[in-house]
Amino acid sequence: MEKELKIGIAGLGTVGAGVFKILSRKSGLLAKRAGRKIIVSAVSSRDRKKNRDIDLNGVRWMERAENLASDNEIDVVVELIGGAEGMAYELCRSALENKKHVVTANKALIAERGMEFAELAEKNSVALMFEASVAGGIPIIKALKESLSSNEVNRVSGILNGTSNYILSAMDKQKRDFDDVLKEAQKLGYAESDPSFDISGTDAAHKLAILSCLAHGGKIDFSTVYIEGIEGISQDDIAYAREFGYVIRPLAISRATENGVEQRVHPCLVPEKSAIGGVEGVTGAVLVECDELGPAFFSGAGAGQGPTASAVVSDIVDIAANRAGLPFGISVKKLEKKKFADINHHSGAYYIRLNVKDELGVLASITSSMGKEKIGVESVLQRANEKQGTAQIALITHETGEDSMQKALKNIGKMEYVVEKPHMIRIETF
Amino acid sequence: MEKELKIGIAGLGTVGAGVFKILSRKSGLLAKRAGRKIIVSAVSSRDRKKNRDIDLNGVRWMERAENLASDNEIDVVVELIGGAEGMAYELCRSALENKKHVVTANKALIAERGMEFAELAEKNSVALMFEASVAGGIPIIKALKESLSSNEVNRVSGILNGTSNYILSAMDKQKRDFDDVLKEAQKLGYAESDPSFDISGTDAAHKLAILSCLAHGGKIDFSTVYIEGIEGISQDDIAYAREFGYVIRPLAISRATENGVEQRVHPCLVPEKSAIGGVEGVTGAVLVECDELGPAFFSGAGAGQGPTASAVVSDIVDIAANRAGLPFGISVKKLEKKKFADINHHSGAYYIRLNVKDELGVLASITSSMGKEKIGVESVLQRANEKQGTAQIALITHETGEDSMQKALKNIGKMEYVVEKPHMIRIETF
Repeated sequence: MEKELKIGIAGLGTVGAGVFKILSRKSGLLAKRAGRKIIVSAVSSRDRKKNRDIDLNGVRWMERAENLASDNEIDVVVELIGGAEGMAYELCRSALENKKHVVTANKALIAERGMEFAELAEKNSVALMFEASVAGGIPIIKALKESLSSNEVNRVSGILNGTSNYILSAMDKQKRDFDDVLKEAQKLGYAESDPSFDISGTDAAHKLAILSCLAHGGKIDFSTVYIEGIEGISQDDIAYAREFGYVIRPLAISRATENGVEQRVHPCLVPEKSAIGGVEGVTGAVLVECDELGPAFFSGAGAGQGPTASAVVSDIVDIAANRAGLPFGISVKKLEKKKFADINHHSGAYYIRLNVKDELGVLASITSSMGKEKIGVESVLQRANEKQGTAQIALITHETGEDSMQKALKNIGKMEYVVEKPHMIRIETF
Repeated sequence: MEKELKIGIAGLGTVGAGVFKILSRKSGLLAKRAGRKIIVSAVSSRDRKKNRDIDLNGVRWMERAENLASDNEIDVVVELIGGAEGMAYELCRSALENKKHVVTANKALIAERGMEFAELAEKNSVALMFEASVAGGIPIIKALKESLSSNEVNRVSGILNGTSNYILSAMDKQKRDFDDVLKEAQKLGYAESDPSFDISGTDAAHKLAILSCLAHGGKIDFSTVYIEGIEGISQDDIAYAREFGYVIRPLAISRATENGVEQRVHPCLVPEKSAIGGVEGVTGAVLVECDELGPAFFSGAGAGQGPTASAVVSDIVDIAANRAGLPFGISVKKLEKKKFADINHHSGAYYIRLNVKDELGVLASITSSMGKEKIGVESVLQRANEKQGTAQIALITHETGEDSMQKALKNIGKMEYVVEKPHMIRIETF
């Protein structure tokens, strides 16, 4: 048996403590699966006295996380601090420079510094592993990197943020409002006290940038991801979507198109009978559409202590078993500098909701305004609010271009009988 | 870059020709992903003249497949002949003995000879890869072997035979009879001209034996798999199942229980709203329930040229990239000799359908007969057939033991007003 693999863990929050627990409790099983023992040699965290329900006896405590990176005993630095800058960045960089393997669950760090780190890891022949950074325990990184290596990927579509999906599905199931459900999600611990990264789509965008690189073989460029949050979705939208046969899901999509790779995070209408449409609550899911294999669908716990820690430990086992491979499957030098498609080049169907004065000819004038941009309407629902003398119009268009749709919406928004800014949600079909 | 990896392909049927096509058409992409070129050095098949729509120029043709195993140039033998005995067996054994890597899509061979081959592969430090043997292009072998390595698996449930699932879902959707749908499946090429391996459950049982080993770390023992086919499922069963909120699916289940590992292949009632219940047609699916990760669900094309060939080629890429690892994740020497649970120790809920004379007190006497075995009835449906003076009773029990259920069925079957052997289908919940 090879000599034991020695680990240093930086960050003993929920995930860090979970990793420590699995490594202690399952040391026998992991040694069998890794072909050698895995030992936690040292840990570092902000507060030594915090009760974490783990036994740190015999494990070295380091006041400064950066010392893990220069420690002679340590083979693998596990970074669970978080954030794309500061300590997490410094620690990983210096660990890789000192020829130590790095395992991280940090999506922001990989989305923004992944290329730099992978180059360093390759140069120093060490591993950089980040399965836990996307979709928690769903093994989508390894699937894209290794299992689907004989495929060209056409589209990756994921529910990558559990909080957003929890909110939209609770609004749907329980007919409750956005703010109300968000408060509950915070109480249940699904959403952070500052939930803006989740709600706004930034968290999902970090994850998408990573998947997009693995799927299409292009260098990560987080700045090119189009991002729209779920804040604007109302109970009305959810109800109309159902009437049209759709549900609203927070999607992250990376797709190879003629204009380059589309990378977009926004709420979507998806067919209610599709696999993605059936994903509820904090569950995560990824659909990968491949040229040889066709569609491959993965779902499971997208976050939480067990799933995330489980992914971190599996990465450590891969390193121990000498099967980690290159960080992004392809050597960074050979990753292409892809062209990314602007959202204005997007083409698809759209859902539109309008609040209008309930007057004769309004619908005709709206559809004619769309017709000028060559947008065909597939279905329409109209509901009068007699008390207020207004009506609500919800419609689904045929496939059209984003630029045409934006022009039409601008024109419609200016019409005198349109009493509120038009609401638009993109439709994604599977 | 390392020196090129040279492949010998035995068997140029649908899958073999598919593998050859991917390796030729995508040689550039694969070289990037594998870190070196992959070259088909030689092929062997029964009929040299058959039109396969592939260009064999520059590729050596071997009249005898076994010569691939002793050829000095070849690094990897790809076995796509099929069958657990004869040429496929001889070829793989002799390739491994000659220190060549082996890739196969042959589930029967791995289910029956996997332990012997893995030992040989480990002794000679070569790879034995078989991702394509289970669930076509769904990367479930690698997921269990590597991605979930930090988990103990409680239960694996799979739709592993596309033909059976196609038949049961077409019977459901189109209200057609078994024989009728089977004939169509044969016409469409989903079912073989001799479909008995699919229908009887043997094909799924081979695949389950492999998954069970990977999931629970026990040596494969195909003989311990309980197998029941789908031949007995009628249109009535499907309709009653729907009324109770279930659909019928051909499941393969491996589960850790107090009495040992249950391994069973049989039709099941599953909740119609479950992920597995939503899997229709020739699609395959696997649900893995883990201690850390919770449930992880995978679905996709279970068979066919593209998916199966894609899995074979991904295995070849893993070998080329030096990340193949041990055949079963754990060294064969360390796989436990597991205790397997007999089907009589199974515990679960059951669906029963009875054809009875339509007389007073029949239902009471049936439920009392079940009560004697301590079986509780959860729901009952009864439909009279007035013309024939008979009635059909369908019921769902609470959880009970298989042995109690078998006793009760035997007693009920003997009752004079029961005009047909009782029909029983196990219920699996998720």
